[in-house]
Amino acid sequence: MTTETDSPAAVPAPGDGFHVFDTTLRDGAQREGINLTVADKLTIARHLDDFGVGFIEGGWPGANPRDTEFFARARQEIGFRNAQLVAFGATRRPGTTAAADPQVKALLDSGAPVITLVAKAHDRHVELALRTTLDENLAMVADTVSYLREQGRRVFVDCEHFFDGHRANPAYAEAVVRAAHGAGAEVVILCDTNGGMLPAQVGAVVAGVLTETGARLGIHAQDDTGCAVANTLAAVDAGATHVQCTANGYGERVGNANLFPVVAALELKYGKRVLPAGALAEMTRISHAIAEVVNLAPSTHQPYVGVSAFAHKAGLHASAIKVDPDLYQHIDPELVGNTMRTLVSDMAGRASIELKGRELGVDLRGDRELVGRVVERVKERELRGYTYEAADASFELLLRAEAEGGPRQYFRTESWRAITEDRPDGTHANEATVKLWAKGERIVTTAEGNGPVNALDRAMRAGLERIYPQLAKLELVDYKVRILEGRHGTESTTRVLVTTGDGEGEWATVGVGENVIAASWQALEDAYTYGLLRAGVAPAE
Amino acid sequence: MTTETDSPAAVPAPGDGFHVFDTTLRDGAQREGINLTVADKLTIARHLDDFGVGFIEGGWPGANPRDTEFFARARQEIGFRNAQLVAFGATRRPGTTAAADPQVKALLDSGAPVITLVAKAHDRHVELALRTTLDENLAMVADTVSYLREQGRRVFVDCEHFFDGHRANPAYAEAVVRAAHGAGAEVVILCDTNGGMLPAQVGAVVAGVLTETGARLGIHAQDDTGCAVANTLAAVDAGATHVQCTANGYGERVGNANLFPVVAALELKYGKRVLPAGALAEMTRISHAIAEVVNLAPSTHQPYVGVSAFAHKAGLHASAIKVDPDLYQHIDPELVGNTMRTLVSDMAGRASIELKGRELGVDLRGDRELVGRVVERVKERELRGYTYEAADASFELLLRAEAEGGPRQYFRTESWRAITEDRPDGTHANEATVKLWAKGERIVTTAEGNGPVNALDRAMRAGLERIYPQLAKLELVDYKVRILEGRHGTESTTRVLVTTGDGEGEWATVGVGENVIAASWQALEDAYTYGLLRAGVAPAE
Repeated sequence: MTTETDSPAAVPAPGDGFHVFDTTLRDGAQREGINLTVADKLTIARHLDDFGVGFIEGGWPGANPRDTEFFARARQEIGFRNAQLVAFGATRRPGTTAAADPQVKALLDSGAPVITLVAKAHDRHVELALRTTLDENLAMVADTVSYLREQGRRVFVDCEHFFDGHRANPAYAEAVVRAAHGAGAEVVILCDTNGGMLPAQVGAVVAGVLTETGARLGIHAQDDTGCAVANTLAAVDAGATHVQCTANGYGERVGNANLFPVVAALELKYGKRVLPAGALAEMTRISHAIAEVVNLAPSTHQPYVGVSAFAHKAGLHASAIKVDPDLYQHIDPELVGNTMRTLVSDMAGRASIELKGRELGVDLRGDRELVGRVVERVKERELRGYTYEAADASFELLLRAEAEGGPRQYFRTESWRAITEDRPDGTHANEATVKLWAKGERIVTTAEGNGPVNALDRAMRAGLERIYPQLAKLELVDYKVRILEGRHGTESTTRVLVTTGDGEGEWATVGVGENVIAASWQALEDAYTYGLLRAGVAPAE
Repeated sequence: MTTETDSPAAVPAPGDGFHVFDTTLRDGAQREGINLTVADKLTIARHLDDFGVGFIEGGWPGANPRDTEFFARARQEIGFRNAQLVAFGATRRPGTTAAADPQVKALLDSGAPVITLVAKAHDRHVELALRTTLDENLAMVADTVSYLREQGRRVFVDCEHFFDGHRANPAYAEAVVRAAHGAGAEVVILCDTNGGMLPAQVGAVVAGVLTETGARLGIHAQDDTGCAVANTLAAVDAGATHVQCTANGYGERVGNANLFPVVAALELKYGKRVLPAGALAEMTRISHAIAEVVNLAPSTHQPYVGVSAFAHKAGLHASAIKVDPDLYQHIDPELVGNTMRTLVSDMAGRASIELKGRELGVDLRGDRELVGRVVERVKERELRGYTYEAADASFELLLRAEAEGGPRQYFRTESWRAITEDRPDGTHANEATVKLWAKGERIVTTAEGNGPVNALDRAMRAGLERIYPQLAKLELVDYKVRILEGRHGTESTTRVLVTTGDGEGEWATVGVGENVIAASWQALEDAYTYGLLRAGVAPAE
């Protein structure tokens, strides 16, 4: 695990001496809450290819129509630059031939140049789940590998439940590896399918199997002990040269080994080149983009790529970070496309506020009294449920209000009203009326929308755009609702975070209130105020 | 790392031969988004004591008033059964004595029987952050430890940035360990403060320092490489007998070593008793309870304790799980207080639906046609944004509707209307009118609430309670809103999940609609329908 350097002369082409094998589209899709369309899968495949993984396992053609369609479209629509497409499937059924098995035929029909076969390596699974003999299982592995090799495909074999199987019956588990290797499988992957292993165990088993069988080995780790990344690295330390991972660690139960920290450790800690040049700096963007496609919020606390991964909160650290950021970061965040952030919160002292001011281009160093007022104001608002950590734009408005002697006020709200009506025919009507003042003018507008907040947003915009045409290019890009004080049902305080964009950048604002509509209104007010500030419009009322 | 068994005769009392040291209240509180009141800290301390950790680090008395108050109140209000309370603080300032340093005095004033001192162990940090000499830093460590020992306290020393420091200047880093150990520190903790280490490195350094210094060593790992749990275990493998962790892995940046998988690995994988008997089975409950207190949704994918940790989705697995669940789980979930779940989703086949039916007490094995209809209906609804994985009660209603030839209908909605108004004085009014039919009667009620959904809920309840008095004991315990189709602002589809309780159990229902109010209404309809079903009320309209 000490730094290794692969001599380019000593190994085959990149992607072959060491395999970064992604199974987001197959195993990752098993995660609770993920449900991918074919279009989603194509988009993710493009991101993974951009990132530079060597292999993309696209699904199980023949087992479900969506996966069959994916392979058909991927071949036509994606010009892969880095990755080879992999089809996943089982070894032939007991008591037949590989050539006669329709599931094996579906793998060939997928047109994928690489096929991963899943083989049972645990004796009890062979008997209870496959309901065949141990010998027939070995024959199923050997036959199917040979047949697919004869058809000109590269073949990898996933040994399912390998580690549990190896504990129960090491001779049989190794016999499965030998059957696959002997029949021409390029790589035999040891799978910790139930995810119960710890790194020292994984390292010992991989080293032993390597010695016993001489097969090229890969590792597939699940994260049930919280050690999937470490288990993957332990297998590499022991001689595995193929790692199976998923983007953001998506996968069944707890998840799979997370592609991003595995690749980052190999590149940055081992000094091993496993991605095309420049790819690592795209990691944060690609991680977040894939999260968007699968429609899960990107994990804020994910290693390397989370928005919190290089965020500093403690007052103690913040003052030292001003001296030398490298003392407080294990890597330069730019290496993985992330950035250092200073968090504004009531735990933060003056140093954090000054540092944040600097990020926002406001020099606060000269004014201790102002910094004190900002700290006080943040504390008071956070007690009421606001959060400025996630709402930079609202924080900047607060900071400027203190620095400039009052808030930027482009408009003032007199009142508003939102009505949602469910009609007997099942349709809904949403109508909002807003009364605003801007540049001395009273504006009353009414608008409809597909929900009450959307109706309010449209009414506000319709009223203000006549006076501030700059608002036309603003777009709401994200809208999040959080109920605070957890378990009190609908009587809780509501916090709304709104992300707004103008085509050049995005900013987040926060609103808090006793109900979702009032909180949304506040966040919208800040969003438009900040948009006008960004556009360089002078405050005017 | 192979299974160890501590002979009770060979080690001191539990909690002393091996320390489980929790720092949720100090280091965990640094996590972005966490903001604890004194009451929160007291509640968390009680949960941790119940769980049976040996040490609870409560904060930094003297550094902020909240922590000072916590120690004062914890001494009076909590009768600890398992844990000792620990105060955290720095070594004395340069150029003074420990007795004269007010921060050291504040540690004594806290009344905590154990004090953890943080010491710099990285030469550059001593020079740049502490701005003193390397020798003075050693004197600061030795003086402060000796003084606190003289005052009758147990002393642990956290060597900050130890691993980076040891790489830069091993002799100095070890000199700090010796200074602490020589002055009477019981345990010297090697901290991977920046979190950049991998398990093999941690193991090698811990083993080396143990040999060089003879001090009792502990480990404090941050999760920046995604390896904090494995790093902690690697340190234990190398001879560390004190692990510092936080509940749910809360902590600065990516977080700290997660207490739960560390303790579970020690107990279940190493066979090492580190908690009181019976405590491990409380782990899931305590993990979720602490998440509630810090007001973060419990991580669904956390090892051992996440709701997904033993959830099975794939049709392939589901059929084999019916044969033998142990083949598909690395531990029995009941050992950690969790349960196996079968997920209903459009990836699931008939086997999953049958298994789910069995969980719900509905035997579907005899009726292939019915199972097929349920699978189709789930697919069709999930395409529209519903999710049954998180809404068991809505799924059961769907299942019964198919099995019983139509939905359970205790009432029928004619129409409803919700109005939210912001008045010029800044107050809000929320009013809802609902028109329902139940037992042949038309019910029209109007209610106010603190938000539109709350007003609807109250109006619905007020109208129905006259007819179904069983509804009186129902309470909304959680309410979640998710905007689907990610980045389209307020025009997206909205999914609402409602958790309702009746004092004996809780159930979750789902509603989907073009706006939050319509989606909430649907989820409320299901919530009350299911509540009446649970109460054994016969369907009646």
